[in-house]
Amino acid sequence: MSQGQPRLHVQLAVSAGSALRNAFTREAVLEAADGHPGVLDGVSLGFSDTGPALEAALPGADILVLTGQAGLAGLALRAPRLRWLHHTSAGVEWLLRESLPPELLLTNASGTHSPKTAEFALLCALMLSNNMPALFTAQRAHRWDPRPSPTVAGRTALVLGLGGLGGAAAAALEAAGLTVIGVSRSGRPHPAVAESHPIAELPALLPRADILLITLPLTAETRNLIGARELDLMPRGSGVVNIGRGPLLDHDALAARLRDGRLGGAVLDALPDEPLPGDSPLWDVPNLIITPHCGLYDPTAYARRCLDGFFANLRRFKAGAPLQQLVDPARGY
Amino acid sequence: MSQGQPRLHVQLAVSAGSALRNAFTREAVLEAADGHPGVLDGVSLGFSDTGPALEAALPGADILVLTGQAGLAGLALRAPRLRWLHHTSAGVEWLLRESLPPELLLTNASGTHSPKTAEFALLCALMLSNNMPALFTAQRAHRWDPRPSPTVAGRTALVLGLGGLGGAAAAALEAAGLTVIGVSRSGRPHPAVAESHPIAELPALLPRADILLITLPLTAETRNLIGARELDLMPRGSGVVNIGRGPLLDHDALAARLRDGRLGGAVLDALPDEPLPGDSPLWDVPNLIITPHCGLYDPTAYARRCLDGFFANLRRFKAGAPLQQLVDPARGY
Ligand SMILES: NC(=O)c1ccc[n+]([C@@H]2O[C@H](COP(=O)([O-])OP(=O)(O)OC[C@H]3O[C@@H](n4cnc5c(N)ncnc54)[C@H](OP(=O)(O)O)[C@@H]3O)[C@@H](O)[C@H]2O)c1
Ligand SMILES: NC(=O)c1ccc[n+]([C@@H]2O[C@H](COP(=O)([O-])OP(=O)(O)OC[C@H]3O[C@@H](n4cnc5c(N)ncnc54)[C@H](OP(=O)(O)O)[C@@H]3O)[C@@H](O)[C@H]2O)c1
Repeated sequence: MSQGQPRLHVQLAVSAGSALRNAFTREAVLEAADGHPGVLDGVSLGFSDTGPALEAALPGADILVLTGQAGLAGLALRAPRLRWLHHTSAGVEWLLRESLPPELLLTNASGTHSPKTAEFALLCALMLSNNMPALFTAQRAHRWDPRPSPTVAGRTALVLGLGGLGGAAAAALEAAGLTVIGVSRSGRPHPAVAESHPIAELPALLPRADILLITLPLTAETRNLIGARELDLMPRGSGVVNIGRGPLLDHDALAARLRDGRLGGAVLDALPDEPLPGDSPLWDVPNLIITPHCGLYDPTAYARRCLDGFFANLRRFKAGAPLQQLVDPARGY
Repeated sequence: MSQGQPRLHVQLAVSAGSALRNAFTREAVLEAADGHPGVLDGVSLGFSDTGPALEAALPGADILVLTGQAGLAGLALRAPRLRWLHHTSAGVEWLLRESLPPELLLTNASGTHSPKTAEFALLCALMLSNNMPALFTAQRAHRWDPRPSPTVAGRTALVLGLGGLGGAAAAALEAAGLTVIGVSRSGRPHPAVAESHPIAELPALLPRADILLITLPLTAETRNLIGARELDLMPRGSGVVNIGRGPLLDHDALAARLRDGRLGGAVLDALPDEPLPGDSPLWDVPNLIITPHCGLYDPTAYARRCLDGFFANLRRFKAGAPLQQLVDPARGY
């Protein structure tokens, strides 16, 4: 580093409670940095948990890379130099409740899950189309109850949200021969779908959905977006998949329609409480499959993809260029 | 029909006990025939169940198309003109125990299941790769137990049998990025797989199999082919799928290895007894998914595909050309 040029300090903090804690190791970070020659010139790295060691590092930190949760109240005072906070997950709704300093840049891991999301979305579509939820329920009851089905090609999937998750899912479903209808906040065209609509058109689209795939972020606008009214607009026997966040969906309304057969099946990767308590009635709802928030996470690839995104952004940051994966606190995602 | 040319009588008999009974209707047969112009010139069709009405029709029948099972003992005497028996299923092991007249041509529905088999094989590979068997077991126990996994691409599937089922499955798995090793009786090259081997090499191949997909016919050679010794040659945590016939596999050996975690999961579409009795211990074996012989059957397409195969063969038969889908009673498939 040439003299006089201020050194940039990047603090990486991993919470002990994070499911990703074993992925974001010092070794993983340094190995990923090797793929971005020169990116660490003029940069110092610090590694800590989210306890007192982080607190001690915050006054000198220009950039914070956070895995898991941490108390971030009063950050302007605790970290006066901090200009950028990168979070290594895609969902940051809790962060936006922390009243972060208004000038702080916030980025997330949107896009990191794409390859696994593409595969998991296809798996969910195939499970629904092949009546796997009903077959599991029958198996639990020792009931031989064949449920043959046509191939999935030609069915229609309504993909709610066309960001990192929804875009990857939509492309995979189209490739498998499904007709995909995309819905986003803006309704802007998306390369993965022939047809995309703004959220206001949802009621008119739900009657076409053999499968509803929810990939939304949790915001003030999306909380409880899918309730009894929306589910009742779907065709009889259709299916629901939620890979976004639990509170997007009214689980009592879903359970009632799975119990009475109005809906054919559901797969929930996002649940109303996580971990779902052992006494939750959801575990036993017929024709419901629960994948405990693990469908989209590839433990062999996630950290590297996420860090590659961060280091590409770090190069932009150093050059004064606009960052990618930016979160807009006002929008909530 | 020109005078003097003998009329050909095709009798179509559907057993009331067949799962396919509602697919092979008179309407379906006539509609399929429409797609084969002229194929019924000089042909009379008869429709019956497999009871007395069939018995009454047998003396005049040249060709019998059978759906489901029927008593076929002494067929040479009961149907003296019969030259060809077509069965509308792919598995005909029971038929071969009926000591059919030695000159009788026998054909089956091999190849009819291909599109649905391709999809179901992919679904099974994705379920195993995504640890769905373990997730179901955890769900039954109300246990939040995330089991994240990498994408399926790069895993190795050993496909046992490369006929109608195995060929379609192998192509679908290769397209999904798996490495596919094919095994058949002959070991002859197959267009869907880069690598194919004769059955004698099975012990050397099993250690490479992340997924073993069994698609064999049930014959004297294949009965009990996959037992404790074979399962113990597979890698720890690998998975088994059986879409052939139950007795190909030692279910006690499989269950023991699923219980102790030696194997990671299994999907059984073919079971030792069908319907599987309610008190079978298999229903509750951990990390086991049961699809009650319905994974490969597409009710919207099966009869038409099968009848198209039959009518194409009927044209060959009338022209004195060799039939396709021929079963060799000596080989057993
Ligand atoms: N299950 C898991 O393991 C897992 C993993 C990763 C993420 N997630 C969850 O999935 C969420 C989405 O992740 P992502 O990476 O795909 O986010 P993203 O890239 O930010 O995309 C969000 C998408 O949602 C749309 N959207 C936002 N508000 C909307 C509204 N009110 N109505 C309709 N559409 C709206 C956006 O529309 P525009 O295109 O118009 O902006 C955008 O297409 C995350 O926030 C997280 O909660 C779950
Ligand atoms: N679950 C279901 O709903 C369902 C549906 C349809 C069929 N099935 C079952 O699946 C079986 C296979 O059907 P298919 O249409 O694929 O049959 P197919 O077209 O006759 O093919 C049979 C394949 O198995 C191989 N094979 C036979 N004996 C073998 C041995 N001893 N060792 C290794 N390979 C051997 C053959 O090898 P070669 O290539 O060398 O001849 C051939 O590749 C049927 O017999 C039926 O029992 C189940």
